[in-house]
Amino acid sequence: MFIEINFESEKPIYTQLVEQIIAGIAKGKLQPGERLPSVRNMAEDIGINMHTVNKAYQALRDREFILIHRQRGVVINPNGVPRADVAYVNYVMDELHPLIAESITRQISKEQFMKLVKEVYKSYSIERHDST
Amino acid sequence: MFIEINFESEKPIYTQLVEQIIAGIAKGKLQPGERLPSVRNMAEDIGINMHTVNKAYQALRDREFILIHRQRGVVINPNGVPRADVAYVNYVMDELHPLIAESITRQISKEQFMKLVKEVYKSYSIERHDST
Repeated sequence: MFIEINFESEKPIYTQLVEQIIAGIAKGKLQPGERLPSVRNMAEDIGINMHTVNKAYQALRDREFILIHRQRGVVINPNGVPRADVAYVNYVMDELHPLIAESITRQISKEQFMKLVKEVYKSYSIERHDST
Repeated sequence: MFIEINFESEKPIYTQLVEQIIAGIAKGKLQPGERLPSVRNMAEDIGINMHTVNKAYQALRDREFILIHRQRGVVINPNGVPRADVAYVNYVMDELHPLIAESITRQISKEQFMKLVKEVYKSYSIERHDST
């Protein structure tokens, strides 16, 4: 498993785990239908509490990134992650607002900000080996 | 004061207050050197705890948005907010990463994402009455 937890980070371990699994899907490292380790195994692999893994898996399930089957275990949503809806777009806007407000006060232009966005998008497309 | 707290929001009141003051600066509603209400007055004005206002002011001071003078009170940084440095750009990238990763899984293209960025930038420049 490619999960790497930074125990020195201010970001909660639970959040790091959620974000890394989503990044794994975005990068195509985790494919629809692919199995994730059980709560117990994931906790042992990365040396964290089972409760933390469980909380992360619940959050990923609530956001439809994974399915949790009693028998088949934990799998990446075989139907793919649901496409963005209006609620998701509003969520993105809500997240962008404070980030852009602060960037404006620190004199980052729209063009500079978009360059950063492009850079981040690129970091995902390179690892996916596609040309977009 | 233009602060409006949403008491139903999941976002902590403290964070809302910090973000709204930064947005006020970004929109030019709060000018360098301008005075903010004292902790006590701000707390009374918006009907929240003094401790919450104090915590927000401390955070804004730590990030150099405001100065807190024992005598002159709380003022928007008269020298302007410091320009973005490498640490700030890294912070923006760190914030963009999970947002863009999730957006990719939900099939929001780079172009669509940049459109949202432009829209948010525009909402600040319209209120500042400039043409950028």
